[in-house]
Amino acid sequence: MKKMLKKVSEKAPLVARNENLLDTVVEVGGVKIGGGHITMMAGPCSIESREQIMKTAASVKVSGAHILRGGAFKPRTSPYAFQGLGEEGLKLLREAGDKFNMPVITEVMEIDTFDLVEKYADILQIGARNMSNFSLLKRAGKSDKPILLKRGMSSTIEEFLMSAEYIMANGNSQVILCERGIRTFETMMRNTLDLASIPLIKQLTHLPIIVDPSHGTGIRELVSPMAKAAVVVGGDGLMIEVHHKPEEALCDGPQSLNPELFMGLMDELNGMTHNAFGGGEFNVKRAI
Amino acid sequence: MKKMLKKVSEKAPLVARNENLLDTVVEVGGVKIGGGHITMMAGPCSIESREQIMKTAASVKVSGAHILRGGAFKPRTSPYAFQGLGEEGLKLLREAGDKFNMPVITEVMEIDTFDLVEKYADILQIGARNMSNFSLLKRAGKSDKPILLKRGMSSTIEEFLMSAEYIMANGNSQVILCERGIRTFETMMRNTLDLASIPLIKQLTHLPIIVDPSHGTGIRELVSPMAKAAVVVGGDGLMIEVHHKPEEALCDGPQSLNPELFMGLMDELNGMTHNAFGGGEFNVKRAI
Amino acid sequence: MKKMLKKVSEKAPLVARNENLLDTVVEVGGVKIGGGHITMMAGPCSIESREQIMKTAASVKVSGAHILRGGAFKPRTSPYAFQGLGEEGLKLLREAGDKFNMPVITEVMEIDTFDLVEKYADILQIGARNMSNFSLLKRAGKSDKPILLKRGMSSTIEEFLMSAEYIMANGNSQVILCERGIRTFETMMRNTLDLASIPLIKQLTHLPIIVDPSHGTGIRELVSPMAKAAVVVGGDGLMIEVHHKPEEALCDGPQSLNPELFMGLMDELNGMTHNAFGGGEFNVKRAI
Amino acid sequence: MKKMLKKVSEKAPLVARNENLLDTVVEVGGVKIGGGHITMMAGPCSIESREQIMKTAASVKVSGAHILRGGAFKPRTSPYAFQGLGEEGLKLLREAGDKFNMPVITEVMEIDTFDLVEKYADILQIGARNMSNFSLLKRAGKSDKPILLKRGMSSTIEEFLMSAEYIMANGNSQVILCERGIRTFETMMRNTLDLASIPLIKQLTHLPIIVDPSHGTGIRELVSPMAKAAVVVGGDGLMIEVHHKPEEALCDGPQSLNPELFMGLMDELNGMTHNAFGGGEFNVKRAI
Repeated sequence: MKKMLKKVSEKAPLVARNENLLDTVVEVGGVKIGGGHITMMAGPCSIESREQIMKTAASVKVSGAHILRGGAFKPRTSPYAFQGLGEEGLKLLREAGDKFNMPVITEVMEIDTFDLVEKYADILQIGARNMSNFSLLKRAGKSDKPILLKRGMSSTIEEFLMSAEYIMANGNSQVILCERGIRTFETMMRNTLDLASIPLIKQLTHLPIIVDPSHGTGIRELVSPMAKAAVVVGGDGLMIEVHHKPEEALCDGPQSLNPELFMGLMDELNGMTHNAFGGGEFNVKRAI
Repeated sequence: MKKMLKKVSEKAPLVARNENLLDTVVEVGGVKIGGGHITMMAGPCSIESREQIMKTAASVKVSGAHILRGGAFKPRTSPYAFQGLGEEGLKLLREAGDKFNMPVITEVMEIDTFDLVEKYADILQIGARNMSNFSLLKRAGKSDKPILLKRGMSSTIEEFLMSAEYIMANGNSQVILCERGIRTFETMMRNTLDLASIPLIKQLTHLPIIVDPSHGTGIRELVSPMAKAAVVVGGDGLMIEVHHKPEEALCDGPQSLNPELFMGLMDELNGMTHNAFGGGEFNVKRAI
Repeated sequence: MKKMLKKVSEKAPLVARNENLLDTVVEVGGVKIGGGHITMMAGPCSIESREQIMKTAASVKVSGAHILRGGAFKPRTSPYAFQGLGEEGLKLLREAGDKFNMPVITEVMEIDTFDLVEKYADILQIGARNMSNFSLLKRAGKSDKPILLKRGMSSTIEEFLMSAEYIMANGNSQVILCERGIRTFETMMRNTLDLASIPLIKQLTHLPIIVDPSHGTGIRELVSPMAKAAVVVGGDGLMIEVHHKPEEALCDGPQSLNPELFMGLMDELNGMTHNAFGGGEFNVKRAI
Repeated sequence: MKKMLKKVSEKAPLVARNENLLDTVVEVGGVKIGGGHITMMAGPCSIESREQIMKTAASVKVSGAHILRGGAFKPRTSPYAFQGLGEEGLKLLREAGDKFNMPVITEVMEIDTFDLVEKYADILQIGARNMSNFSLLKRAGKSDKPILLKRGMSSTIEEFLMSAEYIMANGNSQVILCERGIRTFETMMRNTLDLASIPLIKQLTHLPIIVDPSHGTGIRELVSPMAKAAVVVGGDGLMIEVHHKPEEALCDGPQSLNPELFMGLMDELNGMTHNAFGGGEFNVKRAI
């Protein structure tokens, strides 16, 4: 472990954990990420309509989610698949966040629309496919908004940390990491969620790291168990796909929780007390 | 999930979960594996000497381990590496198990020494490298001792279940599965522990499944967090490498816990109450 | 094979091979890519100085290379590594291409510098890390220059073809594919060059596909054998890293050929006659 | 390369290439493997009947194959799949080999049937699933018959060489390596044939290495191109699945060549002359 930390310190000095440095805590709209808090980000894969984002936002808020997620620009394997609502989606997301008093996070896919996304979002997400899009990372480094950086689907932990270093080296120290599964030979699940990377990364860097069990497994039934496990291994939060009607979702329906399942997960997480894990302050609480 | 279960039911009818069938509970020497129990198997990678196995056995017993593990025949990548003490090791393991009143588990590597290992061990382990050694699986199917089957390092979940089917189809229904990490491109860790496979496999089969976070990560500091996570996702137990002096271990020292660390893990596991996980009876308890 | 072709035809109708459609032949500056020609692209990983690009260009030209490659904007894992000369590099590449009468190819990393790269280059390369950068693919679809699309390091063949479909669906039919190795568990080589993908892809699409054995192996000694094999399996050309002094290269030195080795490779390729492979017109010829 | 060779020399001294040591040439029944010869092994996945093995043997002989392959004991993922004819298959294989004057190779799966297989076969194959079955490797080391060792589907090149070292360290120096593809995330093909491993392994060891493009790809149409490429990169031979009626084959039909396709491949291989590849003596010749 010492050798690994030394290597990271040499290659990524800004990202590397330093004995004198406390955990980075990113704060946005009164919500803290890192430093022992468990922060819940939830919402649909993509914003589809006012009704959809409002209903879903209401439901995740009442269950205790802290941050609302939703995609306006969607990276899709096929050019013929639904690509997101674009700016219209950003506006709806902002409206829902404001109405339910939740900061919002959404993906930014390119430099050209960075300013636009920055205008509406409180946290900007860089997706797995863009983890090594160094131009985008540099632009993110110039932003004054926090950046959530997802691990690339075939990126090593070292490369993941180097990409965070790109953002920090360009001036932005508000970086949140996100483990979302890696690509392996296994075909039953969409990805292989590398949970062991969480305690390892926590030792190597002061940055917060959250877990996305929705993309990490691709299977609804696995989201809750892996979400709880992510908290147990020291994850600083979770990103969960929730849709008010998963069976009608335009993308990622099979991995989305409905509001009832999400409420159940929040209840279970609340039941996991601080003492059970020897970990920091546990703030998964129902909001209302 | 239904489609997956249907496919498994067709291919591996004995292993597949069946609506009318309860979880298989394997019982050995008063210890139960499966059915909501959390069973702790602990001990050294390989049996090195009477002093080593006795000291380690005493320490894991006092911390609450249920089953003593230890290798007598070791599969080693190099023909020049320590290959285990053979029958002498089996005798020492048996002696330690008897003294501390713990059933013992050890690996069987070949048909030729199957009878020998069967004579001394209470549970026979088939290692990851032998998961597709179908001759060995057939022989295991003829044994009246429980078999712990480890997932191959590049085996899919379907192949894993098919290997269990080999054992059951040959007459032995006492099969315990064990997730021990798969091989991926990541190099910082020895393997990528596929924890999401646990809740998935629990839905597909009635067989118990335990987790080996020692081989699954290869890094001492990651063993405890991943052990706790394994319980949270529904694992029926854990296999943990413990050595009374890891720095002197002939194999797997860097991933072995010392007695103090193991006791700390057991304390933490005991602190995780039944209610926290919505899971079955929680019997991780200090023995004395 | 028929099933695979059917699936590709449905998902990527523009890219899919069609019974009535001939192989796409991309023509640039008198050089043909596809349709039975074997096109050689060679040059340094990155353009470092006028002397370097001129000397290397002279040497690959005399050995028979058709197209000059060289990076001006370099995607590097570390923000502290040499990032390329930028526009100055583009100018030097253009100058070298003009002087030695070779079309030039260079990587474009982002939409912001697309116009700039387009101004100087004859073919624009989209690198492995950007294969799923859909914004960049869309921009490439609006270009009137040919695009060389590299396979992502963990992208399936289907995803690779879908990314080509993005470019074609946005209006640019001059797409050249490039296999450059995928990421696996093997650590001795930089990547695992997936040569079998060449004959498979040739059956699934009408687009030309070339091979990059330099990145595909990362080891100088393996470049020539894999280059020859790439021709044998039906590759439409090769991209080879050549540096006039590999030991002084700012990047990728260990996988770069020096001029002598490149000439040797060209001689060997010329020795492989048309009849030997049952393939199209063989135009690997020393230029002078 | 030097560093890699040094490492191999330290870990696997018997297998490692040594400056003073010539290439190992294995000789069996007048057929040479290694040392510049290209040796063709061909035959069905499994021996199904006298008619089948005789017809297939006749056809591969007339096309110029040197060694007849055929499985009598088959490792199958499912316990309910056809497991081979056992000793009856061995007898039929021997009969066919004798009739057509070809040495025969077949897989040995376990120590218990080692003597039996040894009695009938000229070369004993250890399959990919058994590459790390160290007990079997030790037994193979005591045999006086040549051993063909297949690379495990997730084994590194170093592990592959270490397994060969097991055989040599136990007394048998007649070892033939076989690359047969590794497991990756790609799903269109059965495996990813790692052709670059051939020139790399040739530099690291004096042992011959052949290639199995049938299992390496799993797709009939890819067998011939990859077979030719295997020769170009320095492979010492090929193992090709041939069935007189692939559509009726009990296993591996989709990757088997019929006699006509195999004859076409042999013709193409014969057309690839010695000079074309800068490689040793080329002895792919039609027998009659």
